[in-house]
Amino acid sequence: MKFLIFTFVGVVHLLSLGAGKAIYRHDMVSQRTFQEIQKEIARYGDVAKAIIQLAVYGNAQNRSYDRLALLVDTIGPRLSGSKNLEMAIGIMHQSLKDNDLDNVHLEPVKIPHWERGEESAVMLKPRIHTMAILGLGSSTGTPPEGITAEVLVVHSFDELKIRASEAKGKIVVYNQAYVNYSTTVKYRIQGAVEAAKVGAVASLIRSVTPFSIYSPHTGIQKYEDGVPKIPTACITVEDANMMSRMASRGVKIVIQLKMEAKNYPDTESFNIVAEITGIKYPEQIVLVSGHLDSWDVGQGAMDDGGGAFISWEALSLIRDLGLRPKRTLRLVLWTAEEQGGIGSFQYYQLHKVNISNYSLVMESDAGTFLPTGLQFTGSPKARAIMKEVMSLLQPLNITQVLSHGQGEDINVWIQAGVPGASLIDNLYKYFFFHHSHGDTMTVMDPKQMNVAAAVWAVVSYVVADMEEMLPRF
Amino acid sequence: MKFLIFTFVGVVHLLSLGAGKAIYRHDMVSQRTFQEIQKEIARYGDVAKAIIQLAVYGNAQNRSYDRLALLVDTIGPRLSGSKNLEMAIGIMHQSLKDNDLDNVHLEPVKIPHWERGEESAVMLKPRIHTMAILGLGSSTGTPPEGITAEVLVVHSFDELKIRASEAKGKIVVYNQAYVNYSTTVKYRIQGAVEAAKVGAVASLIRSVTPFSIYSPHTGIQKYEDGVPKIPTACITVEDANMMSRMASRGVKIVIQLKMEAKNYPDTESFNIVAEITGIKYPEQIVLVSGHLDSWDVGQGAMDDGGGAFISWEALSLIRDLGLRPKRTLRLVLWTAEEQGGIGSFQYYQLHKVNISNYSLVMESDAGTFLPTGLQFTGSPKARAIMKEVMSLLQPLNITQVLSHGQGEDINVWIQAGVPGASLIDNLYKYFFFHHSHGDTMTVMDPKQMNVAAAVWAVVSYVVADMEEMLPRF
Repeated sequence: MKFLIFTFVGVVHLLSLGAGKAIYRHDMVSQRTFQEIQKEIARYGDVAKAIIQLAVYGNAQNRSYDRLALLVDTIGPRLSGSKNLEMAIGIMHQSLKDNDLDNVHLEPVKIPHWERGEESAVMLKPRIHTMAILGLGSSTGTPPEGITAEVLVVHSFDELKIRASEAKGKIVVYNQAYVNYSTTVKYRIQGAVEAAKVGAVASLIRSVTPFSIYSPHTGIQKYEDGVPKIPTACITVEDANMMSRMASRGVKIVIQLKMEAKNYPDTESFNIVAEITGIKYPEQIVLVSGHLDSWDVGQGAMDDGGGAFISWEALSLIRDLGLRPKRTLRLVLWTAEEQGGIGSFQYYQLHKVNISNYSLVMESDAGTFLPTGLQFTGSPKARAIMKEVMSLLQPLNITQVLSHGQGEDINVWIQAGVPGASLIDNLYKYFFFHHSHGDTMTVMDPKQMNVAAAVWAVVSYVVADMEEMLPRF
Repeated sequence: MKFLIFTFVGVVHLLSLGAGKAIYRHDMVSQRTFQEIQKEIARYGDVAKAIIQLAVYGNAQNRSYDRLALLVDTIGPRLSGSKNLEMAIGIMHQSLKDNDLDNVHLEPVKIPHWERGEESAVMLKPRIHTMAILGLGSSTGTPPEGITAEVLVVHSFDELKIRASEAKGKIVVYNQAYVNYSTTVKYRIQGAVEAAKVGAVASLIRSVTPFSIYSPHTGIQKYEDGVPKIPTACITVEDANMMSRMASRGVKIVIQLKMEAKNYPDTESFNIVAEITGIKYPEQIVLVSGHLDSWDVGQGAMDDGGGAFISWEALSLIRDLGLRPKRTLRLVLWTAEEQGGIGSFQYYQLHKVNISNYSLVMESDAGTFLPTGLQFTGSPKARAIMKEVMSLLQPLNITQVLSHGQGEDINVWIQAGVPGASLIDNLYKYFFFHHSHGDTMTVMDPKQMNVAAAVWAVVSYVVADMEEMLPRF
């Protein structure tokens, strides 16, 4: 996941796109009473139980974990623009075909290609200390001899502004407090730009995590036009704290930063699509998704191997049970999410003409730990329907429907008025591992993935099979 | 801390050493009733409150944290035999003098000198993957070109025995489950020897920790005479798990291990001693201690900076309050604990002639997080007295007296019959950081250190000031 966006998507007027006769008319409001819809959903009780049985207790248990382990052990991390990602897409394309899904194909997109190269940061004063760092995605490198400069430690952008006159020619070290990810991540994203604006030659940012075992965390950062592009990396919480203490004692700190990081021309990649084609309204879509790309450290098992593989598992479970919903259940494995939802944005550009046919877009990109329910954005009526659907998961005691359905790859659909759902799970440890060397299969729990996959399958199947699409605002 | 030893030290017959007239006669049993002793201890209520007030709420709060931060930020880690340790000893020697303690001096000892040098482990098959490792203390290095060999993954010494015929010429990877530290650490200590016995050329051991963010943990290992000395290092939990999965799929794993590790001749070092000399029985001793050396990663802040600095703080608090106990309160900061209690053993050899004069030996080497009480080993009567002493800490609600007083540096005294106490604290996260790059000031909590220091000061002062020494078995 790149961002956690907790923006409430308000009432969005439906764009009348009218692109051909297969487009669903959302102004043809259902005449059915809510009680009739409740009854319709209640009839899926046995199907839901069958999915749960198969996913959690039956032959399919641990399958999503085992499939994911095989991929990430074989390939490793899958950075946008890398050979690893290309290989992973090839393997997944074949695996989905082998799984006998419908309409398995690749949709080409252009994605960023940034490489980290070798990198190091050595404190030269007050004592020699080699620091763990991770350069940030899209950062430039340093000259080969590195950048050697004195450090200015600040704790906020406000402090940087106040001390702007001290920053020229220095390496700005941000030791911002961790509030929560979505609040604090601005230091990673804008840290270099803000430091460059006041004349800094590089910026080092405390990793955005509530907990560290000397673990640096990477992620995307963004330059601004007209502002010098200075090299930027994350350091550990520990080193940020230490340099804060040193600075508060008036100790002069000098760091030599070397980064080979380089941006290359955009490269070709692919979103992977697979379906269970709808039997009655094949042009209508329930989309389930996760992203296949990751950062270049760890295994990208949690972010977002888990989300991608429970999404695949949802279709596998439905296929195994011989089910075929009325509308099409479409799996998309996004590429280059970590660079800013690049693959999904191009998918949207290509497919938005059919936006009226999207009943629900789903993404799991905030862990596949033990789920408690869904985050959902949609009309009050759609929310009421989703609550009924989630009541089918009572056997697992996972029935929450909260607000703020979101996901880097589905937000654009949600903002355009399509109902959107994301998985809520126990996020306690998520940011301990996020974008770090620690994002590996060791974090993942097969039993929790089983449960997450069951939720994903029940929701996507039932919404795809109900007589009517989810009503919009 | 090197080991956690939960051995119950049973009844130990007092050795009659009889070395001069100042030696305390433990056979001169007190004629006082326990009620009289209770009354005596109860009279320390105001002193205990004054210590708590000063340490936790008064001018001394955060002092042990601040002193420790200054040392470890300035010096960094303090490996046995290193310049860093030598510098730290010099600084501490001067600091204790500056603190106006009595009889501040260094006691020379010979300690091991091992250096890690550069080290790396790269998985060559089935895919290139650079692994985080930490070579183990006392390990030999590899030839400069490294050792490149196929991997045999085992999960226990038993499995290694069963598969002994497969081990020849291989790198043995141990992926043992973590049970608890004292149970599981045998893989780190004996892993190389057991692998070498069956013909392995190196061993890589899963780090001994219940939790990892791709964090390798070092520590001592031990060769055996007559068994080839093969290089050995710890890998992360994550890589051990991954290689287990690969091996279970029949995938061939090849690793290139390079270690420059080297053992040098023993070097001179020092235990640091400082006292508040007793006013009535100056030859009698209550010893408070922690070790100043650490591993060569992180800052050695937790292991055992915290223990060393709350021990110093105990004397500082007593000095600040103008208190001088009847017997001598002796602070010892041990050297080379991590190599197997080297400094403390030589101290014992030198001072055991006066063993009868040691009323209580105390060591804090298992964290200075929020304490709940003491572990204590001693006679039933001594335990009853310690419970009364701990009741003085009721204002902090820290009154537990459990069994198994222990500490690498005081065990030899305890085993020889001297009552021994160690701090019990909240160990939940201790082994997350232990012997890793994550052992830094970020782990430490100044408020928790204040409380730990208060406990340490009250116990050491009261036991040093009571009319009689703690009775032995």
